[in-house]
Amino acid sequence: MTLTVGVDVGGTKMAAGVVDEHGHVLDRAKRPSPSEDAEELLAAICDLVGELRGSHDLAAVGVGAAGFVSSDRRRVLFAPHLQWGPGPQADQLESELGIPVVIENDANAAAWAEFRFGAGQGVLDQLMVAVGTGVGGGIILNGEPHRGHTGVGAEIGHINHIPGGRPCPCGRLGCWEQYASGSALERDAQAAAAEGRAPLLLERAGGNAAQVSGRLVSELAQSGEPEAVQLLNDLGERLGHGIATLVSALDPGLVLLGGGVSESGGKLLEAVRASLDTQITGRGHRDVPPVRLAQLGNEAGMIGSADLARRT
Amino acid sequence: MTLTVGVDVGGTKMAAGVVDEHGHVLDRAKRPSPSEDAEELLAAICDLVGELRGSHDLAAVGVGAAGFVSSDRRRVLFAPHLQWGPGPQADQLESELGIPVVIENDANAAAWAEFRFGAGQGVLDQLMVAVGTGVGGGIILNGEPHRGHTGVGAEIGHINHIPGGRPCPCGRLGCWEQYASGSALERDAQAAAAEGRAPLLLERAGGNAAQVSGRLVSELAQSGEPEAVQLLNDLGERLGHGIATLVSALDPGLVLLGGGVSESGGKLLEAVRASLDTQITGRGHRDVPPVRLAQLGNEAGMIGSADLARRT
Repeated sequence: MTLTVGVDVGGTKMAAGVVDEHGHVLDRAKRPSPSEDAEELLAAICDLVGELRGSHDLAAVGVGAAGFVSSDRRRVLFAPHLQWGPGPQADQLESELGIPVVIENDANAAAWAEFRFGAGQGVLDQLMVAVGTGVGGGIILNGEPHRGHTGVGAEIGHINHIPGGRPCPCGRLGCWEQYASGSALERDAQAAAAEGRAPLLLERAGGNAAQVSGRLVSELAQSGEPEAVQLLNDLGERLGHGIATLVSALDPGLVLLGGGVSESGGKLLEAVRASLDTQITGRGHRDVPPVRLAQLGNEAGMIGSADLARRT
Repeated sequence: MTLTVGVDVGGTKMAAGVVDEHGHVLDRAKRPSPSEDAEELLAAICDLVGELRGSHDLAAVGVGAAGFVSSDRRRVLFAPHLQWGPGPQADQLESELGIPVVIENDANAAAWAEFRFGAGQGVLDQLMVAVGTGVGGGIILNGEPHRGHTGVGAEIGHINHIPGGRPCPCGRLGCWEQYASGSALERDAQAAAAEGRAPLLLERAGGNAAQVSGRLVSELAQSGEPEAVQLLNDLGERLGHGIATLVSALDPGLVLLGGGVSESGGKLLEAVRASLDTQITGRGHRDVPPVRLAQLGNEAGMIGSADLARRT
């Protein structure tokens, strides 16, 4: 069986995994991300791969990067959280490692993993919405990742939510992820705590509204605390709103909800479904795509990058 | 050379054309649309095709319908302006005509025509935005029409513009076409005239604000009348906003602006380009897709339906 390695390069840490043809992770390695220097970053990727190569015969490397990646999968075009240098990084890594290397957008790779091995198996057209610090995503069309004409497709966190709304680091105003991400949830929850609307949240955060976290909101919502439930419902409502927009354009057969925030589980999923059901265009005259939780957690990007590297 | 026929079935009239392999319309026929009765509607389509068959050897029929069409192109699922009956209409027409028939969404067909024979030739991933009474559209991905999992993709007029905004006949609130269509332009222009902000528009409409038309706004804008220019700029700004959302998701290589309103020409196109340039995510770190006017006018749907019928 051919083994490949997927490297998930995050803003603070890097994780690599040896992945087989069934999407199983056979071995893992990790280290902090050197964020200041492109040469160090590439050297660290080579080290991680080298560590795993000691015990495995690896056929190719897939590097998942948080940022814009060129459509030929050779180069990181723009990544706000890491110094990648001028590239093409895939060529640089290949000349060092001596095996094929591709670069993939991390969210595209995660969506691919869910399609191949996770919650999205068997549905050729699907949308994954990864709700974490921001909103990432991946689009699978006709059983292939939709990378777009220049490689920067599926930047779904930056669809419009409110024209002229909250500023986004992407340069726009009113992006969806400013309203429907883990950060947005946290900001809303902290405001609720500071304004006296969420006394239990405030108490559990030691009386300091700035310490209210998304995780705490999820915990309290699971136990039925009304303000926490409301905060998750609001998040789900806004998520459903953006998903409805994407469904209007793409008409996917399935929507997957992934990312850290989706791990808050059933309550958020229900709210998203209810919102999509209300917000979908042509309601009553069409099928509403099912919304399910992603299955592969934070290893989805690694698994997807490894699998996409196999397909070079 | 194989000839096929495209039938564009609009709410008030039907137009059919004999189309060759280069997208040239060799012959035409038209008649009013019978809107009350499904049998009459199908009979009228057969009559139109029959009329053209007298002089041409036709290999297949493509019917462009304004509405939801099933992904197998056999059936109209939902069409607010016409009675199509329970379907499958393609089977019914085939048994009458004795040659292959497909049903296509009219805007998808128009986008296909522009890709094959019009302003979009050579670009494998493109978006067409048809601005008329509403906002329709078509999406070409990897050189194929993107119909979606259930056939109702590319309903781009119903992406979100303002959550909870103006009611749309589709059942949602705040759809893009409520703000960025010919109808929206007309409504805004009539309001400007009624409120005394557009004295020249009012005068040219015979002093009756309700008579201000989108065409009149376009005419006055061409001659530089400031309020008309402003109205077109506002429309262009909102169009660019929605296009930016679609570009975030799809990353097309080209955006075409079609539909009746696009015939107001250069001023609107400039406003759309300026708005997209401001609203695109990751501005400065990516290519902004070019925005061009569609070329095939109101025959695009007919030509595209005919060409898609050739590909059965």
